[in-house]
Amino acid sequence: METVELRLDEIEDLARSVFERNGCDADNANALARTVTTAERDGSVSHGLIRIPGYVASLRSGKVNGAAVPKIFNRTPAIISANGDNGYAPLAIERGIPKLAKAAKQLGVAVMALTHSHHFAALWPEVEALADHGLVGLACVNYTPAVGPYGSRQPLFGTNPMAFAWSRLNKPPVVFDMATASMAIGDVKIAARDGHAVPSGTCLDKEGNDTTDPNAILDGVLLPFGGHKGSAIALMVELLAAGAIGERFSYEAAEADNGDGGHPRGGEIFLALSPDLLAGRDWQTHSEKFLRKFEAADGARLPGQRRHRMRISDQMRLVNTALLENTHALK
Amino acid sequence: METVELRLDEIEDLARSVFERNGCDADNANALARTVTTAERDGSVSHGLIRIPGYVASLRSGKVNGAAVPKIFNRTPAIISANGDNGYAPLAIERGIPKLAKAAKQLGVAVMALTHSHHFAALWPEVEALADHGLVGLACVNYTPAVGPYGSRQPLFGTNPMAFAWSRLNKPPVVFDMATASMAIGDVKIAARDGHAVPSGTCLDKEGNDTTDPNAILDGVLLPFGGHKGSAIALMVELLAAGAIGERFSYEAAEADNGDGGHPRGGEIFLALSPDLLAGRDWQTHSEKFLRKFEAADGARLPGQRRHRMRISDQMRLVNTALLENTHALK
Repeated sequence: METVELRLDEIEDLARSVFERNGCDADNANALARTVTTAERDGSVSHGLIRIPGYVASLRSGKVNGAAVPKIFNRTPAIISANGDNGYAPLAIERGIPKLAKAAKQLGVAVMALTHSHHFAALWPEVEALADHGLVGLACVNYTPAVGPYGSRQPLFGTNPMAFAWSRLNKPPVVFDMATASMAIGDVKIAARDGHAVPSGTCLDKEGNDTTDPNAILDGVLLPFGGHKGSAIALMVELLAAGAIGERFSYEAAEADNGDGGHPRGGEIFLALSPDLLAGRDWQTHSEKFLRKFEAADGARLPGQRRHRMRISDQMRLVNTALLENTHALK
Repeated sequence: METVELRLDEIEDLARSVFERNGCDADNANALARTVTTAERDGSVSHGLIRIPGYVASLRSGKVNGAAVPKIFNRTPAIISANGDNGYAPLAIERGIPKLAKAAKQLGVAVMALTHSHHFAALWPEVEALADHGLVGLACVNYTPAVGPYGSRQPLFGTNPMAFAWSRLNKPPVVFDMATASMAIGDVKIAARDGHAVPSGTCLDKEGNDTTDPNAILDGVLLPFGGHKGSAIALMVELLAAGAIGERFSYEAAEADNGDGGHPRGGEIFLALSPDLLAGRDWQTHSEKFLRKFEAADGARLPGQRRHRMRISDQMRLVNTALLENTHALK
């Protein structure tokens, strides 16, 4: 694979200029460019520049409002409502997180309900932003149907990711961000393109049989991770990210979408907890003892570490040459 | 297996009298007897009468306070602190849930931190109690180390269950209550006793190899469900139920325990959300449409239904004859 070396500020400038040329105002272009650059910075390239054509498609079709002005307000002292004004999620999230953190620090717990928004990015930067405030963060998003409930062949859940961040003393947080599908849909597509098998338990073919052929998912269904337990968690994500905040379930999001290739409108729920208030001020010292035991266990790895190692690298980032050319062409 | 038919009030009377003869005051005996009877009522026999010897052992050893007076108070308007006074959890939970529900209905979200308590029961009745208030309930508990983080052979997590309840219109709630271990430790022990194999992926033997021999877990380690993703969720439960509320991590609970066979001291975290406040008053109608789609999917089953069918049965409950005799002998 041919690659080009870029500095992070070059990646951000490129992304910003593409968004500005495609209908974004400065605030939205900046927030989106930061989101793309954060992904490239941490080696999460599946959520970086490669998403730009999808963003652009929905700006050009008019499905997404590039000049969205998110409305952030308290419904109660513990509930922040973030209405995305039909724009992409990053600007609403950037503006909402400080209010969510403030409420959680005052009350010990708070929730942010993001609605009327298009979420096309990773969740880990969002929960990490809560950990940066010394809080515990949890976030869930639903998507369009791709995953069948355990026992069924009918796609009903999105890949429905859930992310969690735990703040540490003088260290990057413990963070996970995982699809509740057995595999991210992007990874299945890459396996199909490259002719690789997927593990047993990833999907069912159209007859409902387990298959390792990634092409079979085109007529079949992706499975939740972890059997009936993972399916229950995928269901919980669907109920929390849609039902609990009054946004679209995955099937509703698909029905309402214009099919431009960009992300449909949907919701996200954020939960922030303050262990300072729940447990008292020595909670981080107490928890570090446990986390050190975890790190000492042979073969165990705390989630999020690979991204954090990549983050502090002062190396240039490698960008696929064709991807870079395609991105420039969207300016 | 020889069984005896009992009415639910007979089960409750028997349990109550055992608890009263073993150091419980009336309030604690009643709360524990209700907990045991609720499990038998719903066919969750692994959490019913079979647990009584464990309860009694810890009352007799003095580890658990049978006359505990839980202290329930607001730390903030959104945080309920429930200090169990070193007793069993049911009384503290019965008294705490109404305060938690009240806070969630006022603010949209609230948390209850249960500490200084011994939790030896199922979680689903506790989150169902929140669903009965029209709320979404989530609860997590940690235990003594039995489960190794993904990639490791060292037990560090408890079986760490997580339960979730979603309130429905004129129907029992959607409820799951699942160990984040691949299998509950009780089920592994039953497989060992009966000479049955366990599924591949349940545990590792002492050399760290996957095994289907349930006896191998005695020298080996139980695995989390669902590979690295399930392991991340088990870690989240450990951090929420212990670190976030300042109670003992599983390894600390084991170190501090007197080994009497009853449950060690530990914590539980409860989260309650009000979709009425988050989404508006039509949330249940909206969500019912999704749940009806789920129910219509061939082969899919909403979690909790088996218990709810058992619950409404007016049949007598079948109790193992030897278990019944053993229970009477503890009076």
